Amino acid sequence: MKKANEPEGFSGFDRKCMFRAMSLARRGAGKTSPNPLAGSVVAKNTRIIGEGWHRRYGGKHAEPDALDAVLAAGESPAGADLYCTLEPCCFTAPDKHQPPCTDRIIKSRIRRVLIANRDPNPRVNGGGIRMLEQAGIAVQSGLLAAQGEKLNEGFFTFQRLGRPFIRLKIAQSLDGRIAAAGGDSRWITGEAARRLVHRLRSGHDAVLIGRGTALADDPELTVRLVRGANPLRVVLDSRLSLPDSARLLGLSDREKTLIFCAAGADPRRIAILQNRGIRVIPIDAGEGIGLSLQRVLDVLADLGVRSVLVEGGAEIFTGFLKQGLWDRLAVFIAPLVLGQGISAVGDLGIKAVKDALHIQDVSFRTIGDQALFEGARTASREGTRVYRDC
Amino acid sequence: MKKANEPEGFSGFDRKCMFRAMSLARRGAGKTSPNPLAGSVVAKNTRIIGEGWHRRYGGKHAEPDALDAVLAAGESPAGADLYCTLEPCCFTAPDKHQPPCTDRIIKSRIRRVLIANRDPNPRVNGGGIRMLEQAGIAVQSGLLAAQGEKLNEGFFTFQRLGRPFIRLKIAQSLDGRIAAAGGDSRWITGEAARRLVHRLRSGHDAVLIGRGTALADDPELTVRLVRGANPLRVVLDSRLSLPDSARLLGLSDREKTLIFCAAGADPRRIAILQNRGIRVIPIDAGEGIGLSLQRVLDVLADLGVRSVLVEGGAEIFTGFLKQGLWDRLAVFIAPLVLGQGISAVGDLGIKAVKDALHIQDVSFRTIGDQALFEGARTASREGTRVYRDC
Repeated sequence: MKKANEPEGFSGFDRKCMFRAMSLARRGAGKTSPNPLAGSVVAKNTRIIGEGWHRRYGGKHAEPDALDAVLAAGESPAGADLYCTLEPCCFTAPDKHQPPCTDRIIKSRIRRVLIANRDPNPRVNGGGIRMLEQAGIAVQSGLLAAQGEKLNEGFFTFQRLGRPFIRLKIAQSLDGRIAAAGGDSRWITGEAARRLVHRLRSGHDAVLIGRGTALADDPELTVRLVRGANPLRVVLDSRLSLPDSARLLGLSDREKTLIFCAAGADPRRIAILQNRGIRVIPIDAGEGIGLSLQRVLDVLADLGVRSVLVEGGAEIFTGFLKQGLWDRLAVFIAPLVLGQGISAVGDLGIKAVKDALHIQDVSFRTIGDQALFEGARTASREGTRVYRDC
Repeated sequence: MKKANEPEGFSGFDRKCMFRAMSLARRGAGKTSPNPLAGSVVAKNTRIIGEGWHRRYGGKHAEPDALDAVLAAGESPAGADLYCTLEPCCFTAPDKHQPPCTDRIIKSRIRRVLIANRDPNPRVNGGGIRMLEQAGIAVQSGLLAAQGEKLNEGFFTFQRLGRPFIRLKIAQSLDGRIAAAGGDSRWITGEAARRLVHRLRSGHDAVLIGRGTALADDPELTVRLVRGANPLRVVLDSRLSLPDSARLLGLSDREKTLIFCAAGADPRRIAILQNRGIRVIPIDAGEGIGLSLQRVLDVLADLGVRSVLVEGGAEIFTGFLKQGLWDRLAVFIAPLVLGQGISAVGDLGIKAVKDALHIQDVSFRTIGDQALFEGARTASREGTRVYRDC
């Protein structure tokens, strides 16, 4: 089916090939950052003759991988169509591991190149398309562009905003509590929802929690219920108060645990943690009592992190929401009513409903007896009429 | 399709006829209380030859209505099957307007009677079935029993618990707020959700709100967006603080507005309101600062109210939830985040997640960009495994 905003001129077979390229791209999940995921398909006479993807950071790009597969199968790419999830690269640089894909495409005598998204990287940004067109290759872009953006939300967000993509994952009762009045947050979740959380984690470069959540839940933040790479585990713990017995400090892949503390934190505690293989990074304090979230994101970006899943608690959610440092929400709603307790979100300075954060691109689905609400950040809700509910 | 817990021996045609009888029954919605809705279908050789329903309180019952329709069509009910949403009545009493339906069914030489639910009224409760069987009529009950219970949730609840059926309808933001920090609850709802609220209202004998909601929202509590009867509008306003300008006091059908006040409320104010055609009933105070909800329900039951839609605010929701005076929840979740504000539910005395109210029979659906969560009261969540979400 043709999508509403998709340019004309694409066939059902075109869409099929691009879908395939995107699912190939996903095979690199967790291994390509800070590079984007990329997949590629070569087709001739409505038959796929080669497939490839970017397998790991620094490795071969998707397009030469697919073209190599064509040759390995004893076929010729000459006159074929090439489907690329992302605009092929067109430059060399000292910090770049691979030669320009455009050269290889031109040499292979590809007839037509179909692209989901332009590469927003200023060193490409249409340059790859121009180079192919100058070589007489027909180029069409925008095929399944929305899906392409979703495939690389971290990469695109970083290019656009200069910070990692941020998804807030909240698990709450029907009445919006993340913990009972006594502070208890021992949650009740079906296996399906837990799997989904692990799959979410595996789709991000880093998972981030605050000190309170680390102490109250003692989580592992791993993806043990699904296949995939464990993300970097980030804890904001200004005074390094996590006990030695915390699970996060005892995992076998401890180099994937990173603690941000205040600049004035106890240096002996820093040394002890580092000796255990934990990474500890002291940073300046933020506006409130906590650490500066912007500084945290800057450091994570420098470490190559392009997407962060924020898992709580309330102070952390409130901080990210209040500073506009978020892109998508995933709220798991359990069929429980807690009454008084800890709310997921604290004071955002909102005094009237008209000033509320309006979530965009809303979707709901059920997972066992829970609901998963998903949505995106937005400035306005165009096209939605406002009524009074009475 | 056969339902999991349905007895054997029903055909697809049987189910079709019972569905039809139920949709006929619904035509009496809002007009039969405190009697239940009832519908009836007469069929012979897989052909429906007569249909009837209970049109209004005191009027003809569904079975004779259907049998009359058979005769009016020039057919004979002898040897036919009779589908009844509720067990036919079998008694006469000074307070009963209609003769026993069993007599008429037996005289009509019906071959088989199919029933959704037994009538829990102690004066029937299987007596109708026995009487028919003693007359040599085959009786099968339990056909679409769950749907039958839903059709008459008020009637069945009253028979079981001696109080009206209570549905709590909460409209909240994603983070569980029913109003912003400033008290503003000017809500944003699409037309589809508003229609649904009006349909919900039309399915209840009464709509109930607290003084705070009446003052803040100044609602009409009517069903003007859908076809159906306006329910009784009930306001708990212990000190009769609603201003004369309140919409609820100015509607044309003012006799459908009922205010409960404290026993010590200003008698002059009571007189003024009653002069305007508003019903005012003083009752004792409850445990807290508000009126006794149990007393309110007792009075409503005496007035023939069998179902109540409770629309807020937080104090009212909390009271009903805390005292276990509720049967179903309908929570509209808007894609908004408010941060600090008024929570839908206050202190229920719950200190740990394991003690939370676990909602049963959970369902979610989307209405425009909102979600509607529905569920029922329950003591335990059998069959659901408990995990930690970390």
